[in-house]
Amino acid sequence: MFLTRTEYDRGVNTFSPEGRLFQVEYAIEAIKLGSTAIGLKTKEGVVLAVEKRITSPLLEPSSVEKIMEIDEHIGCAMSGLIADARTLVEHARVETQNHRFSYGEPMTVESTTQALCDLALRFGEGDEESMSRPFGVSLLIAGHDENGPSLYYTDPSGTFWQCNAKAIGSGSEGADSSFQEQYNKDLTLQDAETIALSILKQVMEEKVTPNNVDIAKVAPTYHLYTPSEVEAVISRL
Amino acid sequence: MFLTRTEYDRGVNTFSPEGRLFQVEYAIEAIKLGSTAIGLKTKEGVVLAVEKRITSPLLEPSSVEKIMEIDEHIGCAMSGLIADARTLVEHARVETQNHRFSYGEPMTVESTTQALCDLALRFGEGDEESMSRPFGVSLLIAGHDENGPSLYYTDPSGTFWQCNAKAIGSGSEGADSSFQEQYNKDLTLQDAETIALSILKQVMEEKVTPNNVDIAKVAPTYHLYTPSEVEAVISRL
Amino acid sequence: MFLTRTEYDRGVNTFSPEGRLFQVEYAIEAIKLGSTAIGLKTKEGVVLAVEKRITSPLLEPSSVEKIMEIDEHIGCAMSGLIADARTLVEHARVETQNHRFSYGEPMTVESTTQALCDLALRFGEGDEESMSRPFGVSLLIAGHDENGPSLYYTDPSGTFWQCNAKAIGSGSEGADSSFQEQYNKDLTLQDAETIALSILKQVMEEKVTPNNVDIAKVAPTYHLYTPSEVEAVISRL
Amino acid sequence: MFLTRTEYDRGVNTFSPEGRLFQVEYAIEAIKLGSTAIGLKTKEGVVLAVEKRITSPLLEPSSVEKIMEIDEHIGCAMSGLIADARTLVEHARVETQNHRFSYGEPMTVESTTQALCDLALRFGEGDEESMSRPFGVSLLIAGHDENGPSLYYTDPSGTFWQCNAKAIGSGSEGADSSFQEQYNKDLTLQDAETIALSILKQVMEEKVTPNNVDIAKVAPTYHLYTPSEVEAVISRL
Amino acid sequence: MFLTRTEYDRGVNTFSPEGRLFQVEYAIEAIKLGSTAIGLKTKEGVVLAVEKRITSPLLEPSSVEKIMEIDEHIGCAMSGLIADARTLVEHARVETQNHRFSYGEPMTVESTTQALCDLALRFGEGDEESMSRPFGVSLLIAGHDENGPSLYYTDPSGTFWQCNAKAIGSGSEGADSSFQEQYNKDLTLQDAETIALSILKQVMEEKVTPNNVDIAKVAPTYHLYTPSEVEAVISRL
Amino acid sequence: MFLTRTEYDRGVNTFSPEGRLFQVEYAIEAIKLGSTAIGLKTKEGVVLAVEKRITSPLLEPSSVEKIMEIDEHIGCAMSGLIADARTLVEHARVETQNHRFSYGEPMTVESTTQALCDLALRFGEGDEESMSRPFGVSLLIAGHDENGPSLYYTDPSGTFWQCNAKAIGSGSEGADSSFQEQYNKDLTLQDAETIALSILKQVMEEKVTPNNVDIAKVAPTYHLYTPSEVEAVISRL
Amino acid sequence: MFLTRTEYDRGVNTFSPEGRLFQVEYAIEAIKLGSTAIGLKTKEGVVLAVEKRITSPLLEPSSVEKIMEIDEHIGCAMSGLIADARTLVEHARVETQNHRFSYGEPMTVESTTQALCDLALRFGEGDEESMSRPFGVSLLIAGHDENGPSLYYTDPSGTFWQCNAKAIGSGSEGADSSFQEQYNKDLTLQDAETIALSILKQVMEEKVTPNNVDIAKVAPTYHLYTPSEVEAVISRL
Repeated sequence: MFLTRTEYDRGVNTFSPEGRLFQVEYAIEAIKLGSTAIGLKTKEGVVLAVEKRITSPLLEPSSVEKIMEIDEHIGCAMSGLIADARTLVEHARVETQNHRFSYGEPMTVESTTQALCDLALRFGEGDEESMSRPFGVSLLIAGHDENGPSLYYTDPSGTFWQCNAKAIGSGSEGADSSFQEQYNKDLTLQDAETIALSILKQVMEEKVTPNNVDIAKVAPTYHLYTPSEVEAVISRL
Repeated sequence: MFLTRTEYDRGVNTFSPEGRLFQVEYAIEAIKLGSTAIGLKTKEGVVLAVEKRITSPLLEPSSVEKIMEIDEHIGCAMSGLIADARTLVEHARVETQNHRFSYGEPMTVESTTQALCDLALRFGEGDEESMSRPFGVSLLIAGHDENGPSLYYTDPSGTFWQCNAKAIGSGSEGADSSFQEQYNKDLTLQDAETIALSILKQVMEEKVTPNNVDIAKVAPTYHLYTPSEVEAVISRL
Repeated sequence: MFLTRTEYDRGVNTFSPEGRLFQVEYAIEAIKLGSTAIGLKTKEGVVLAVEKRITSPLLEPSSVEKIMEIDEHIGCAMSGLIADARTLVEHARVETQNHRFSYGEPMTVESTTQALCDLALRFGEGDEESMSRPFGVSLLIAGHDENGPSLYYTDPSGTFWQCNAKAIGSGSEGADSSFQEQYNKDLTLQDAETIALSILKQVMEEKVTPNNVDIAKVAPTYHLYTPSEVEAVISRL
Repeated sequence: MFLTRTEYDRGVNTFSPEGRLFQVEYAIEAIKLGSTAIGLKTKEGVVLAVEKRITSPLLEPSSVEKIMEIDEHIGCAMSGLIADARTLVEHARVETQNHRFSYGEPMTVESTTQALCDLALRFGEGDEESMSRPFGVSLLIAGHDENGPSLYYTDPSGTFWQCNAKAIGSGSEGADSSFQEQYNKDLTLQDAETIALSILKQVMEEKVTPNNVDIAKVAPTYHLYTPSEVEAVISRL
Repeated sequence: MFLTRTEYDRGVNTFSPEGRLFQVEYAIEAIKLGSTAIGLKTKEGVVLAVEKRITSPLLEPSSVEKIMEIDEHIGCAMSGLIADARTLVEHARVETQNHRFSYGEPMTVESTTQALCDLALRFGEGDEESMSRPFGVSLLIAGHDENGPSLYYTDPSGTFWQCNAKAIGSGSEGADSSFQEQYNKDLTLQDAETIALSILKQVMEEKVTPNNVDIAKVAPTYHLYTPSEVEAVISRL
Repeated sequence: MFLTRTEYDRGVNTFSPEGRLFQVEYAIEAIKLGSTAIGLKTKEGVVLAVEKRITSPLLEPSSVEKIMEIDEHIGCAMSGLIADARTLVEHARVETQNHRFSYGEPMTVESTTQALCDLALRFGEGDEESMSRPFGVSLLIAGHDENGPSLYYTDPSGTFWQCNAKAIGSGSEGADSSFQEQYNKDLTLQDAETIALSILKQVMEEKVTPNNVDIAKVAPTYHLYTPSEVEAVISRL
Repeated sequence: MFLTRTEYDRGVNTFSPEGRLFQVEYAIEAIKLGSTAIGLKTKEGVVLAVEKRITSPLLEPSSVEKIMEIDEHIGCAMSGLIADARTLVEHARVETQNHRFSYGEPMTVESTTQALCDLALRFGEGDEESMSRPFGVSLLIAGHDENGPSLYYTDPSGTFWQCNAKAIGSGSEGADSSFQEQYNKDLTLQDAETIALSILKQVMEEKVTPNNVDIAKVAPTYHLYTPSEVEAVISRL
């Protein structure tokens, strides 16, 4: 009988009878409620763009950080629980700094992404670095290393994929289908900025201003756009 | 079936099927029951003001501390469980002292806020510094460092935001909308004192006296107002 | 649905949906069943008085200790689980002795109270010094230090307040309202003795005798009244 | 609703909504099922007497030990789970020996009792010395130190009281009321022996013989009566 | 209400509302299902006899060990879970060897029994030596030391008694009442052998053979009877 | 009664009354949902082939890694949770590197497989290397050592088998029966490539392209086919 | 009431009210589903024989190991969860190697069996070597030491018996009754091979071939039969 069965397999990080991990699925739900973030890879570099929900005019827009630098050649955009993302980013910063110190060269973007996912995977294990629940956040990791520019997407299960373009958060579905229409491999970085912002504009309910979006690029080093640089992209829409 | 599902994902710090963390939400409820606290940033410095619920005339008003010094350039106002706030403040005091000792300079306001939130985020993890539940308290952290004056707001989830003005506690909703009408970037510190106290007065049920409110400023160092200084601000209302 | 919700947030030290900590509230219930204790601060010093429930004539009254010395300048009265109070007092005695040894001067009354509350706050955390449940006891801590006489009141949540007069235990409600009528800042220590005992008399079901009450003062050092000293106060009623 | 409430506060050592600790109350039930033990203090010393339930004529009466020596100036009688009592007595023996070794003098009876109760109080805490449940035993601790003879009574909650006379176990209620009639402070040790045994006789279902009672005194050193000494007391009834 | 109550006090080693420890009672049930073991003390030494259930003719009778040597002056018979008994016996062997090594003399029978019971008592405590449940075994410990021959009986609660004769296991009730008829203090060792085996014969369903019983004596050293020695006793019945 | 029974034996890694381990069975369900992977052993070496589900044209096909190198003489294909597989592969890489370092020779394929299964077996044990649930992944491990080529298949229970040909994942049933028709011991490596891909083609819903399949061989060293090498195999179908 | 009772005694390794350990009983169920294994002792040595379930013609029969060497003088056959058996065998190999290293002589067969059972007994204890559930496997341990040949049988409870002949697994019942007819102490090793295989043949559903049975002997050293040696025994049937 089914009810009896379930008594043998409960726990935070256990399989359901259908082979599912519910906590991971619920964490993914948390991300669907988050603000939209977008990444777009070109030959010249990667562009990240995020929506910032400024709930009050008295909030300092620059303190709502949804794009962060990991190392000088890697940045990331996020959607979901920001406090969780900060923990992951801080972990990645330590890893990349240790790598530079030990080997005298920057960590590759894939290794950095793997290091983040290793931490995310081990939720519920009770060891010192891991959390008792999945990290409720998805990341778009933009970087540039010896293999050129790259864009990775991670989810709360600790899995990652390399993408040419990817959106996460509440507007991700619409944004992803727009990408399939507009993306091609020969985009310039400037094209990418315009496409990213125009797609973000479609999924946001408010008018786009330098206050409620952030843009960054890794080309080949991380740079967060100033308000006037954002304004310039907006004016091109 | 839903009832079966829930058996795979219970715990103090786990996601609900909708991607929510209930303990954090319940802790936020605890704060909604707390007394009101207010913070206001000006170019000259930051003003903090709190309501003190003096339940008996035999209680010593000065022992109801809802504004505390963290370091000489940082202070904080709080709403929620005061014993929890004391633990956080004590943690921040150790962090800022260690920073002065190690680097010979004051810790920035943002780093101090981040250190507080790191501790708050790790509830339910079972390590030595963390608690088994979220800290049931919100803080308004006022400081002054190389970037000038700043005001941060933290909640039980370990998230923080930088604000120009912010209210927490039972009267926060009314206070926040008053702020949106009255705040502008060119306020003097004296204006800020008057606005803070007049807004506090609106949300308090009792008459404002030096006994049932506290005021402090960080401009550029922390100073808790004496009863006569409070009296002077009251007289300006 | 509410029943489903509760499955995500159970534990000894967790918030209820309304932001409440039930174990703390239940511990407070334990104190409401306890015998009454009273504290009264004057300029000359602090008086503590407690009811002692002597359930059998064969019990040695002096072994029912509800007022204890912490250090020569600090004493405390208690209501609730006496075994819990003993643990707290023992902890405070070690702290004050360590302070004298390390700094060559007595610990302040507030620091001593804070040390007690730090221990009380961390129930359910699983570390060595803390308990798995809240301490089921309230304390009235009377002391005298460089700031003169002071009286603190602590509850099972680890919160404390400074008071001029305070009652705890089953008769606290009636006693507290009597205090509001009879207290003024200019009381002599002798007045305080008389008021404390007359209020205790009102809330006790039995006749007051040197056997069923204890009185102590800190003025400026701790002194527990002998039966004849208690008799003298009774005779003044 | 009440059923929902209880989900936030379960555990072996937690308060019920009425502020009660059920495991302690249940342990006290265990003692009510135990055989009766009696203690009686005189100016000349303390007498302990216990009923021994000899369930089979093939059982060696002397191996049913319900009175034990702790140190040469302290003995104790017990009712409840004998294996638990042995653990407590063994702990007290180590404490008193350590005290003699460290300070070159016997431990006071009160300090010894306090040491026993400290261990009893910490049940459910998970540290090395404590048990996962309360000790299911009450003790009558008889001793003689610089303050003369004394008699302490401990219960499973870790609380203790000093008494002139006290009975524990299944016959305690009847015995205690007999004590109130027959006790006075001027009893000789021989009177005490006779009273103790006559009271024990009332609450026992069987005829009193040297096989089914034990008597000991601390006057001023511990002495367990030989069968013929017990016979002599019986003959005086 | 009763159902609510029980939620505050569950656990493997906790009291029920009536003051009972169910796991211990259930372990005693396990022993009632075990094969019968018998011990009989005489002035010349102690005799142990056990029934061996040989479920298949292909089983090696000598590998069904229900009487074991602890030290050269101590042996024990057992009923219940044999694997648990082996752990206890192994523990006792280490203790007695350590004692010989440290003090140069054999451990007394009572100290050995106490050491076994200390381990049995601490089930559910989570420390290294103890088990998570009670040991499901009773022992009859026969020994000879400076006090002459002695026989102890232990149960899963960690309690022990000294006996002149005792039976454990499924046939214990009938055997114990036979003992009361046939035992007297002046039995010779040979009488004891005959009585033990005749009582065992009564409670066994099969014919007694050297294959399905074991006999041992401690007089004053441990000796397990050879098949021909057992045959000799059988022939005397 | 059945419902009562189940209360004595719950846990993540415990037997059901029928002797089953449900978490392992549920993990196997997770694999049945995964993409198909295939392994085929010939005298010349082993071929691995996997289906890659490319959910979006913007995903980088090469970042969907379902065949990985463990050491230069061992590779593996996987089906199920990719993040879990990465942990296992990383563990195996460390083991094989350590073996080379310690013994100066490659680890055998069987020892490597055993090392992987040891880790998989210990789920739910709470030690540092193991997880709190079974690894939700099956592996096909292809290798070449002193015993020639070999192919192992592992499942979430930590069991492994050596095979000549094996399929795992959603299409495994159909693929396995095709193998039984087409496999013989005298296949060349080229035959194996063609058979593997033709079987994969049958179970895939999409057209086979170099983008949605990966092929690798160990013959005798690991080699992942380039897109043009895959194209060449496709053209032979 | 019964339902209430059960709340005081749940756990993986706890007694039921009837004194039963359900996890052990369920593990025994797991073995009843396993393939049949047989052991037979003669004066010349011990023979082990097992059925191998080859579920696919593509499975390598030699990789289905159900008879393993522990040391050169000890081997074992198994039925149940093979991954669990591997852990036990690995443990025994380390123990026997350590013994050879420390004492310069082989470990006896009984000591080796005891070491295996010690590990099996401590399931659910949470220490490093033990598992959270019983080992779901029975072993037949064949060996030859200074006492000549011996055969031991172990079950998941950690109990062991010495036997002349024994079968385990799904066909054990039929096999055991055949043994009782055919076994006698004067069998030659060759007789034993023939009897073992003929009994195995009766309980297997398929025709016996060198692919689906394994035979080993310890006489006096461990030897696993080659396919042609197995063929030779088959031809004698």
